[in-house]
Amino acid sequence: MEINELNPDITSVAPSALRAFDHKISQDPNIVKLTLGEPDFNVPEHIKLAAIKAITDDKSHYPYYWGIQELRDAASEYYREKFGYNYTADQIVCSVGATEGLAATFKTLFKPGEGVIIPAPAYPVYKALAGVNHLKAIMVDTSTSDFVLTPEQVQAAIDANPETPIKGVVITDPCNPTGVIYTEDQLHALVDVLRDNKIWVISDEIYGKLLYGGAKHYSLSAWLPDQTIIVNGLSKSHAMTGWRIGFVFGPTGIIDEIAKAHQFQVTTPTSIVQYASVEALTHGQADAEKMRVIYEKRCTYLAAELQKLGFEMVKPGGAFYIFAKIPEICHQTSVEFADELAAKYHVGVMPGKPFGDDRYIRISYASSMDNIKAAVSGMAELLQSKK
Amino acid sequence: MEINELNPDITSVAPSALRAFDHKISQDPNIVKLTLGEPDFNVPEHIKLAAIKAITDDKSHYPYYWGIQELRDAASEYYREKFGYNYTADQIVCSVGATEGLAATFKTLFKPGEGVIIPAPAYPVYKALAGVNHLKAIMVDTSTSDFVLTPEQVQAAIDANPETPIKGVVITDPCNPTGVIYTEDQLHALVDVLRDNKIWVISDEIYGKLLYGGAKHYSLSAWLPDQTIIVNGLSKSHAMTGWRIGFVFGPTGIIDEIAKAHQFQVTTPTSIVQYASVEALTHGQADAEKMRVIYEKRCTYLAAELQKLGFEMVKPGGAFYIFAKIPEICHQTSVEFADELAAKYHVGVMPGKPFGDDRYIRISYASSMDNIKAAVSGMAELLQSKK
Repeated sequence: MEINELNPDITSVAPSALRAFDHKISQDPNIVKLTLGEPDFNVPEHIKLAAIKAITDDKSHYPYYWGIQELRDAASEYYREKFGYNYTADQIVCSVGATEGLAATFKTLFKPGEGVIIPAPAYPVYKALAGVNHLKAIMVDTSTSDFVLTPEQVQAAIDANPETPIKGVVITDPCNPTGVIYTEDQLHALVDVLRDNKIWVISDEIYGKLLYGGAKHYSLSAWLPDQTIIVNGLSKSHAMTGWRIGFVFGPTGIIDEIAKAHQFQVTTPTSIVQYASVEALTHGQADAEKMRVIYEKRCTYLAAELQKLGFEMVKPGGAFYIFAKIPEICHQTSVEFADELAAKYHVGVMPGKPFGDDRYIRISYASSMDNIKAAVSGMAELLQSKK
Repeated sequence: MEINELNPDITSVAPSALRAFDHKISQDPNIVKLTLGEPDFNVPEHIKLAAIKAITDDKSHYPYYWGIQELRDAASEYYREKFGYNYTADQIVCSVGATEGLAATFKTLFKPGEGVIIPAPAYPVYKALAGVNHLKAIMVDTSTSDFVLTPEQVQAAIDANPETPIKGVVITDPCNPTGVIYTEDQLHALVDVLRDNKIWVISDEIYGKLLYGGAKHYSLSAWLPDQTIIVNGLSKSHAMTGWRIGFVFGPTGIIDEIAKAHQFQVTTPTSIVQYASVEALTHGQADAEKMRVIYEKRCTYLAAELQKLGFEMVKPGGAFYIFAKIPEICHQTSVEFADELAAKYHVGVMPGKPFGDDRYIRISYASSMDNIKAAVSGMAELLQSKK
């Protein structure tokens, strides 16, 4: 069979440019990588011990497809206490990381042909999921509003797409790639336009535990519980990226449908990870905080150094990224800059293009201070060469 | 939002009746269950130790989305030696169990509206995946041909659906729920009609290591390599159901597209399970055989006992199921029979209805001999009560 006989919703979507770029530069054994969005920390010891106990206790059989009861109970409690979520265990599905939760949510909420607003720059998986589900991705440039989506931008997107039934919007708070967080007022300002237009919120709060400067995390689910699906998980808060555990929170009825999409996608996440995750949520309340303090120090350092080098940025309030505008002096697109930085200076940063803005680079500081310093040196050398 | 505003491809598909039935009867603390399709064995010790080593070695970061190189290399070698598969590592994607591999395959191969032939009785997930992907599921009754799909049945399905472009057929060998295996001749007989009509084979070979009576496993990929996708995994051969690891094998080009669908579905399977699976494939060649010998003994015993009770069946050649026709004396549908057996005799067997044949029950002998004997006693009592 020819490729063009396959499903065009798959063939027309490119594989993740982020992972491809990272894979490419990883061939250089001397590369210092500030590319991928994953903690450089390891899984906390007590969670590792819980996983080992699950293995020795032979917790290797099929868990219930929603996830084991203990884990959904623990997630209900943990996120209620941390973020004020208001979901019982039967409104929570355990997913194979946040990605699978997003995939099940997109598949369930949208009919082919409907529209989804994606504030850009954005994590590229949202646009890919729109493509995979045959949706119209309506990219809204937020670089003019400090990377925060405004109600005016939502209204303008609606007005500009009269033929498209816009059914959802993705809110990533804290944001990947910009590190920007929404204040309570900024989120609340979106409520009316979303309610009036019956636009579902797909609220990606995976970085919600990583906020700086004493900021507090808010969720649109507080005001729009009947039209919000939250995706969260332990990848970032507990450094469990490769272990693949996420959670989807949603209103009764709707979440049952998402659970079905999830079931036919994966059956259920890995059993031993589910048991370990109970430990993470019940005795790992302090885990994220320890990492957060370290991330914040790195963030402060890196932001100051980048500014010295001439990079402009919106001050990040969370996550572990800085989205920095490439100095004019370079006259380079993000891909050219990142390629040159990797090839000549052995420093990996992510080009902004896959996120939707070719003027920027995304620098992850989920890496050691030594790596961050080495990366700054490399960038300084590159910029020096342009003078 | 109302449920009817969601994606009808999800809302119209029922959640797994198998898991729902199992969940229901599991509320009875005294139930003896021969319901679910998973080994009663635990993960072999050396694989558990490999998983523990991966945990202590902090293999907790994102693996490459196709799966780690070592695992794809090991899968290439293991399945080449065991079944004669002819796939290099770059033609293999590691999936979250066979389910996720099937989901990615269905999503990639088919455009909405196309048809897929599903020989019935069948594992219900195939029909669900057809629904989720907006395909026409063409169920072909194989109870008239000893549960083996024949070329005449394929041709008849094509002739009966002139409006539907039939693009695929699912072959489950050994078969769930019937336990029937295809001989080399039976598989080879399908080659011409599938080639002439450009029908892709989705070959679910997850039970391929569990064959009885010295039978050998064959795969249509030997004759139709350019139009076969194989789904396999370690759930059944290594008793790793809850750990969630599967493999998709396919021709270059096509498999790259399946890898993309997989990436946007889950990113990748759990890292520690991937490392443990390398151990399973490189040093666990004998694991399945030990279990197989025990399954075969149970199968022989159970088949004989069921025949004494008046159940008719096609002699199973593999997997760990017997699909038995409920004796006429009962005058019961499969759901009525299974419900009564569970409620009055505390024995759980799966009704045949979700598999597509309400005259049968599926009895899994992936359970201890004590449980099997207790189940036989329960069924004997039920049958006695009908006389």
